Formats: sequence, C-alpha cells, structure tokens
Amino acid sequence: MGLLSKPIKTLDDLFVHTLQDVYYAEQKIAKSLPKMIEKVTDPQLKQGFQAHLGETRNQIKRLEQVFQMHGESPKAVTCPAIDGILEEADEIMGDVKDPEVLDAAALASAQAVEHYEITRYGTLIAWARQLGRDDCASVLQETLEQEKATDKKLTQIAEARVNRVAV
Amino acid sequence: MGLLSKPIKTLDDLFVHTLQDVYYAEQKIAKSLPKMIEKVTDPQLKQGFQAHLGETRNQIKRLEQVFQMHGESPKAVTCPAIDGILEEADEIMGDVKDPEVLDAAALASAQAVEHYEITRYGTLIAWARQLGRDDCASVLQETLEQEKATDKKLTQIAEARVNRVAV
Repeated sequence: MGLLSKPIKTLDDLFVHTLQDVYYAEQKIAKSLPKMIEKVTDPQLKQGFQAHLGETRNQIKRLEQVFQMHGESPKAVTCPAIDGILEEADEIMGDVKDPEVLDAAALASAQAVEHYEITRYGTLIAWARQLGRDDCASVLQETLEQEKATDKKLTQIAEARVNRVAV
Repeated sequence: MGLLSKPIKTLDDLFVHTLQDVYYAEQKIAKSLPKMIEKVTDPQLKQGFQAHLGETRNQIKRLEQVFQMHGESPKAVTCPAIDGILEEADEIMGDVKDPEVLDAAALASAQAVEHYEITRYGTLIAWARQLGRDDCASVLQETLEQEKATDKKLTQIAEARVNRVAV
C-alpha cells in the first residue's frame, strides 16, 4: 500500500483495497491479452483468448459497478501478484521459439492468471457477504463463474489440442 | 529465464523449466510461512499454516523425487509470480494493524499462494502425462490433492471463524 492510500483498519477497508487490487489486475490483463493473442498459433486458443479479452473488459465494468454500489470511486492500486504472474508469462513466451511449445506455455500462463482471479473474486465474495453486501457479492459472482468457465475451457483446449501437438 | 538456463525447445524442456519454477516457489513459501504463523492470532489459522509448512517441506522432497525420476538434478529458477504473490502478502500484512482484519488478509494471501500452486501442479501433471511420464504425474498428483485440501480448509476457517470476527 502506498503512503497515499487509505489505511486498512476494518474488513470493509480490506474489501475496498482488494477491489482496487483486482481492478488494477484486470486492467493489466486487458493490456496483456492482445500480445498473447498475437503470439499463439492454435486457432481455438487464439479464439479463447479473444473471447476472454471481451469478458475482461466487461469484468472491469462490473468492478466499477461494485465500487459505485459500495459508495466508492473506482481506483486501482498496484498489485505485485499480477505483475509477477504477467512478468513470468512474458519471460517464458519470450524464451520459447517453437510455436507449438509456445502455445502450451501461453495456455499455462493464462491459467495462472485465471487462478489468481478465481482466488481473489472468491475472497471478495466471501467478504462482501460478511459485510452484508449480498448485492455486491452477486455482481462479483458473475465474474467468478466466467473465470472458472475460462479456466475449464483452457484445460479442455490443452488436453484436446495444445499439449498433444507440443510433444 | 536467465542467460545460463537451458533453452526451452520442447515440451520436455518446458516441463523441466516449470518444475524448477515450482521448486523455487515451494522454497520461498517454506521461508514465508513461519513469518505468517507468527503474525496471525486465530488458533485454527495458526495451526493450519503450521500443518501446511510441514506439507510444503514434503512437497519440496516430492519435487526432488520427480527431478530424479526424470533424470535431472533438482534446480530452482526464479519465479516472478510467487515473488509477486508473496510481496503482496507481505505488503498487506504490514499495512493492517487490527489482529482480526490481519487474520482475514493473511488467510486470503495464503489462498492466493495455494491457487498458484494448484494451477502449476495441474499443468505439470498434464504435461507429464503427455510426455508419457505417468510415474511423475502420480507423484505430482499427491501434492495437488494436498494443495486443494489446504485451500478448502482455509475457506472453511474463513467462513466459520476469521471473516466473522473481522467485521
């Protein structure tokens, strides 16, 4: 937390801080996905990433809605976790030259991103409910379901296509 | 990947690189857990972290076993993802003073760590199977089951205890 951030004293403060963290993360993901779409070659994987880019943009809007419902202005705080996950994705995708092995690496990196989102949305939903904000929890739940579906779809693409051809 | 690392040309190289990444991650987690155990106050959470420290040490040994089965010497490569996730955990735990809110933050951070491990072990298992290394996959599967059980146990502690008192 930077010096200018609001101190975290209550579960409500922690909820808002984590919303800001995820708001930053989703924006970084939206910036990273076009590069990943460009680099991969498997058409289903490319299409999966493209669909997820559209979803990510909606998830950003959904977060803005939750900020508003909670009486806060949308604000992003640096999230070292997503920075690290995306740095690692960049690194590995820069290191692999074979296009089929690169697809496998990109798919695994995308699943690491999904799992970060799954854990954070799961936490946000639990805290929203605890704070009596079932309305916020419902909106966040829609995103959580999308993230889980994306992760599942990526596993299917890995098993049916990408990992098979990468051997 | 550093300049001295082996280039990643095949799925086998990618598998070994990811083993090295997770080997680094598990060692960092084993170093971080004692600090987290010290900071939290809820006795069940403390006990959960303590149990997971023991499991993590076994998971490191299990990775060494997989390296050996695969004809490789155990080696760690820097994993920016876990560095970022743990940096964020440190940051939030340094920012929160209230012990009950701190427990909620620490528990959420631990779940972010678990989810990183869940995604990486899931990927390693899929790749091991694809490479015809069902023996390695079986050993990694044991760890994956432990990580999933830990994540589930943390959710139970959050719902039944930690989040309730943090309000």
